Amino acid sequence: MTSQTPDSSAARIRRLDVRDPDFFAQLDALLAFEAQTDEAVGRAVDEILRAVRTTGDAAVLDYTRRFDGLTVTHMAELELPKSALAEAFAALPAEQKDALVRAAERIETFHERQKLEGWVIEEADGTRLGQKVTPLDRVGLYVPGGRAAYPSSVLMNAIPAKVAGVGELIMTVPTPRGEKNPLVLAAAHLTGVDRVFTLGGAQAVAALAYGTQTIPQVDKIVGPGNAYVAEAKRRVFGVVGIDMVAGPSEVLILSDGSGDPAWVAMDLFAQAEHDELAQSILVSTQADFLDAVAEAIERLLPTMPRREVIAASLAHRGALIRVDDLEQAVAIANRIAPEHLELALEDPEPWADKIRHAGAIFLGHWSVEAIGDYCAGPNHVLPTMRSARFSSPLGVYDFQKRTSLVAVSRAGAQKLAPIAATLAQGEGLMAHARSAQMRILP
Amino acid sequence: MTSQTPDSSAARIRRLDVRDPDFFAQLDALLAFEAQTDEAVGRAVDEILRAVRTTGDAAVLDYTRRFDGLTVTHMAELELPKSALAEAFAALPAEQKDALVRAAERIETFHERQKLEGWVIEEADGTRLGQKVTPLDRVGLYVPGGRAAYPSSVLMNAIPAKVAGVGELIMTVPTPRGEKNPLVLAAAHLTGVDRVFTLGGAQAVAALAYGTQTIPQVDKIVGPGNAYVAEAKRRVFGVVGIDMVAGPSEVLILSDGSGDPAWVAMDLFAQAEHDELAQSILVSTQADFLDAVAEAIERLLPTMPRREVIAASLAHRGALIRVDDLEQAVAIANRIAPEHLELALEDPEPWADKIRHAGAIFLGHWSVEAIGDYCAGPNHVLPTMRSARFSSPLGVYDFQKRTSLVAVSRAGAQKLAPIAATLAQGEGLMAHARSAQMRILP
Repeated sequence: MTSQTPDSSAARIRRLDVRDPDFFAQLDALLAFEAQTDEAVGRAVDEILRAVRTTGDAAVLDYTRRFDGLTVTHMAELELPKSALAEAFAALPAEQKDALVRAAERIETFHERQKLEGWVIEEADGTRLGQKVTPLDRVGLYVPGGRAAYPSSVLMNAIPAKVAGVGELIMTVPTPRGEKNPLVLAAAHLTGVDRVFTLGGAQAVAALAYGTQTIPQVDKIVGPGNAYVAEAKRRVFGVVGIDMVAGPSEVLILSDGSGDPAWVAMDLFAQAEHDELAQSILVSTQADFLDAVAEAIERLLPTMPRREVIAASLAHRGALIRVDDLEQAVAIANRIAPEHLELALEDPEPWADKIRHAGAIFLGHWSVEAIGDYCAGPNHVLPTMRSARFSSPLGVYDFQKRTSLVAVSRAGAQKLAPIAATLAQGEGLMAHARSAQMRILP
Repeated sequence: MTSQTPDSSAARIRRLDVRDPDFFAQLDALLAFEAQTDEAVGRAVDEILRAVRTTGDAAVLDYTRRFDGLTVTHMAELELPKSALAEAFAALPAEQKDALVRAAERIETFHERQKLEGWVIEEADGTRLGQKVTPLDRVGLYVPGGRAAYPSSVLMNAIPAKVAGVGELIMTVPTPRGEKNPLVLAAAHLTGVDRVFTLGGAQAVAALAYGTQTIPQVDKIVGPGNAYVAEAKRRVFGVVGIDMVAGPSEVLILSDGSGDPAWVAMDLFAQAEHDELAQSILVSTQADFLDAVAEAIERLLPTMPRREVIAASLAHRGALIRVDDLEQAVAIANRIAPEHLELALEDPEPWADKIRHAGAIFLGHWSVEAIGDYCAGPNHVLPTMRSARFSSPLGVYDFQKRTSLVAVSRAGAQKLAPIAATLAQGEGLMAHARSAQMRILP
């Protein structure tokens, strides 16, 4: 399985040591990544949003002809019938079909547990306060075409929406030059996606956000996409909800030197193979373990089909970091707030308790991120770029919303209206004060 | 209590009827409101963000001198000692102090119920999956100065953060020409705000988002503000979390003709007195009740201190709408997805069940919005501009985040790794496939 290693895929990865006086400056430089919005992208997206908003279907057809090279004249040609999805599923090899079904079942089981329920509390005077939970009416799921067309992404976005009880789930997926991804369509069938349109880019986001004559307006748009899609989502936020604007994918592995260095090397590769901006970092208390991983990287890299992408990612954004103890490793993890955190430790549990910020924590040597990416059950849409400091994995809760319920009784009003009136007067809002006071019985 | 009614505060409010053939077009025109970002605001905010990011305290001091007219030379002068907050609280009149304390207690009790708890499920093969819940480390609370300096806003933002267990809560409030609002400082004392800086505008948002030599970087910024603050929050989103960018405040009242028209008129005024863009809409099945409310508006308006603002708001954005039945009224409510919905009905409960989209529902004649704004318990920070279709009131859950836990057992890996490998191969991600396969025992 060895092959020639061209220079562009040579195994280079930086080594850092926490004892180095500028260690933290080096770490910050390694993490620094700013999602720059290209001005040309911004202008193009603006134009597309405006065109779709004002001319609807006509603009959608025009952009789809231009950008995806399709020769379409009617919107009906851009909708895939449900039978096409069912056929794609039926035509899958048994092993793929089985894997997709089992992954979907596990994802559904885990997400069922996330469902929010409403509640009401009643006070002694009959006043009732509560929280009502409602699923979103209609959600748009953007699925990229081309290289990054991932059926797992359909499962991870569609299943929580369906578990939440979303009324209608509309998927858009570009089919450049008519090319369809059968696994993506099969996943749409399996998860019960309601309608599928073969369009992509900012025009798909615009159509979902504003609605056209053919494509119904949704309440929220989820799913990954390229720079144009990300910018379009950012700009329609407010008109509709959006999930998040994701940065490059990241893994941080903490090691106590136990386990197989080749496993760790391959886990770093799995992150790095996404793209050159992906970030793979290993932190270990054992310098000789870091050496062993570096050797495994060198040995295994030439055997990987995507070795050039992996090499570039490791060289630009990867690192092997030596620390004195696991407390330091945990401090680094909390500073990085990684999307994925593997605790490649003999006894991971107590260390997991000390982690404050991470998208997902994988405990122990058997908990490889790849299992989590596809079929463990939890969602693989996770906060990137340190946003695990303030945000959460995609979940059922992203497709439900809460409404406060306030049912003040006559007796309750006698107690509460004077408080409200006093505070309203303090704020100079006299109509507030009087509308409360009107409820006070003489 | 009557006074001269100048033309600018004459009671004008449009009447709509669901039987009118363009009713829905008229309704959509009434609701249409686009939060336009002034380009000049965007440029100014960009410059402020860049300056604070690169020069920190120096820029903060400079802008605070220029925009708030303060003669400060050291950052220490911009921090209020905790004793100043305690003194503001101690100096309040007993009635205000009592109202603030009782409101805070009720808000805390309601929000306690929202706290998320983590969970773990264990499978037969020893694999454990779960969700860990962690509070945010540090949160910034923006409080506006001047006219819109509302102590209730401090309660509604600070209490959920504290209930969530946020480590440090940092408040910024501008003090133009040194003017402090004692009620705001008292509310900060009462809710246990950890540090208070007297600065505002985009420079406050920038300082909280990036951190300066003196002001620590936060993980999320919440709280209302003017156009500069809103635009700054929008631009730092991603670096830190933000709550939402709120639009004008709205109330929708559904009436079956029961209850007192003067109460309804005053409830409409309470919304309208916020500002000229606020929206107050009444929908009733009874034309004569709409007439009675119109008369009450005319009678009561001259008695209101903010009659000019109320009149402008009602004239530009208000409406009295006649419908045939409550089913139609509910359909209109679900289309509007109002921030506040009052069900001024004899029997509100069954109708509340049919509401799919609203920030808060107030049930029955005693449940006036003003009580909810201050002291019922639920939060008064609610989704505006139809965003109740996809978002929720501010809550404890906005100050907590989830982390997925994946602890695959050795036996679990034997079952799951082949599924992951099959799906990874289907996506062309061979390092993912191999990192899973490495866990399969020979």
